[in-house]
Amino acid sequence: MSTSEFELIRSFFASATVQRPDVLLGIGDDCAVLQVPAGRSLAVSMDTLVEDRHFSSEVDPAALGHKALAVNLSDLAAVGADPAWATLSLTLPQPDVAWLGSFMQGFAALADRYGVQLVGGDLTRGPLSITLQLHGLVTPELVLRRSGGQAGDHLLVSGSLGDAALALCATQERPAANPGCAALRERLDRPTPRIALGRLLRGRASAAIDVSDGLLADLNHLCTASGVGARIELAELPLSAEVAARGKQGDWSCPLSGGDDYELLFSVPPARLDALLSDCRDAGEPVQVIGSLAAEPGIELRYPDGRLVKEVPRGFDHFQG
Amino acid sequence: MSTSEFELIRSFFASATVQRPDVLLGIGDDCAVLQVPAGRSLAVSMDTLVEDRHFSSEVDPAALGHKALAVNLSDLAAVGADPAWATLSLTLPQPDVAWLGSFMQGFAALADRYGVQLVGGDLTRGPLSITLQLHGLVTPELVLRRSGGQAGDHLLVSGSLGDAALALCATQERPAANPGCAALRERLDRPTPRIALGRLLRGRASAAIDVSDGLLADLNHLCTASGVGARIELAELPLSAEVAARGKQGDWSCPLSGGDDYELLFSVPPARLDALLSDCRDAGEPVQVIGSLAAEPGIELRYPDGRLVKEVPRGFDHFQG
Repeated sequence: MSTSEFELIRSFFASATVQRPDVLLGIGDDCAVLQVPAGRSLAVSMDTLVEDRHFSSEVDPAALGHKALAVNLSDLAAVGADPAWATLSLTLPQPDVAWLGSFMQGFAALADRYGVQLVGGDLTRGPLSITLQLHGLVTPELVLRRSGGQAGDHLLVSGSLGDAALALCATQERPAANPGCAALRERLDRPTPRIALGRLLRGRASAAIDVSDGLLADLNHLCTASGVGARIELAELPLSAEVAARGKQGDWSCPLSGGDDYELLFSVPPARLDALLSDCRDAGEPVQVIGSLAAEPGIELRYPDGRLVKEVPRGFDHFQG
Repeated sequence: MSTSEFELIRSFFASATVQRPDVLLGIGDDCAVLQVPAGRSLAVSMDTLVEDRHFSSEVDPAALGHKALAVNLSDLAAVGADPAWATLSLTLPQPDVAWLGSFMQGFAALADRYGVQLVGGDLTRGPLSITLQLHGLVTPELVLRRSGGQAGDHLLVSGSLGDAALALCATQERPAANPGCAALRERLDRPTPRIALGRLLRGRASAAIDVSDGLLADLNHLCTASGVGARIELAELPLSAEVAARGKQGDWSCPLSGGDDYELLFSVPPARLDALLSDCRDAGEPVQVIGSLAAEPGIELRYPDGRLVKEVPRGFDHFQG
């Protein structure tokens, strides 16, 4: 690829997304220079997706562009931030204009929906890997944190759990086992970031985290940071028909330990629950009470048959097996 | 690696660098939350280093930790920003605590020198790759840009040019050709970011860029952005003895087209030159006038023997060869 083609791609990146007035210098200088409004703080999230680790080589590049941004939007949602600017480092085995075009189409469609401008990054050659940093704006007094949950708070989760894990499982292990899993696959490839819900939770949830490594692992992070335990009612988990059917057969692994849900898990003091549920209904944000926080440490699961099981949390670990 | 070991590394990262009072949430939540002071803007730079592309597997991890931060510090210097916060995405083939410790030692030593706190990032498994984003603070009216250079402005460069390229060349192609190249090697492995010089240039240089892809390529960027041309006096280039010796033999490739210098290239209006040179001397910042900007486009090189050659810029391109 010649330098002029390289410049073409750079200018393609520069105009790929919405143009925000708070970008003083964008793509094409040594740094991007960005204006954070008075009274607001900067929230940043960085995630890397590596081929054969986080996605297979067959994945649609447009879905990958969507997902690279969505996983970071989910982190911003979890602190209640408004998305603003993205930087993107793409490492590609070879220059592939068709691949880049498709990737950026998926990326820009989601970026435009949330008013995110791509302002900088890097383009290098090597094994396929995508690192995205997303910058958001948040009012410091209203930042949602993992800490702050109290015994007695209700525990809620958005959307549904385990769909992405089941889709991955169906793809990797038993391609024929779930013939009608297109909807699940969509949940794996194009997760819905809960930005609007994060905004609703500002100043109202006592603690929040996004569920990316599995419900139990992320609940454990929230409980550890808050110094509490929790009980989950498995019968209350919001599940798709496919994931629920597995639960009926005794297999709860997808909703409890599967990764890639990108839903919000949060705690709400009892006095604030009804108003919040009502606002979520009005806003069309699907949330469900799935349990509560408790004074004693550890996570207790109540199975639909009434059994109580103390769970040792095990989430997705990038350095395991 | 177990989850608890993973957490250990995370807490190791969290305490690796200086702790800044403007970090509201650091490592360990979904986002870092950072306080940009009133009247200042955010400058961000992101660079990726890929094994076998930007460094060999034999490189000292501590040098790599230094370099990952230094190349981004150089970008911040080029816009005149004060370094503040870093986010780091590390992709490693396998967990290697000794490697991580050494990498972070090199990183933290440089971070502490510039008051940079590591506030977040990602740790994943895959082919060795390092993406670092650095965040700095800059007064918007004083941001240095590539544009703004005027015909007649003096052209200056800091430090010396071509050392890193010669070191790379000596290592890769002719290991025995330069037995005494430890000092050059140090320039390749541990470049000196010109943060203090960037501060001196704020509001005084008409245009600035950091020389990372080779003098001609980066000068071409500055000229294109400023809508001017330039003339360089090769006899005035600041060169180490080793690089100068090659020039005497007619080989100017290292200082003109070699990458990895991480010096600042900048233009200064004639009326401001003497005061700036004097301040640079007082501050111990080595700078050298190497030519001037011109109205007609293109880059003209005057060789020490008086020959004038119009140069077609060719810099380092990550998608070439």
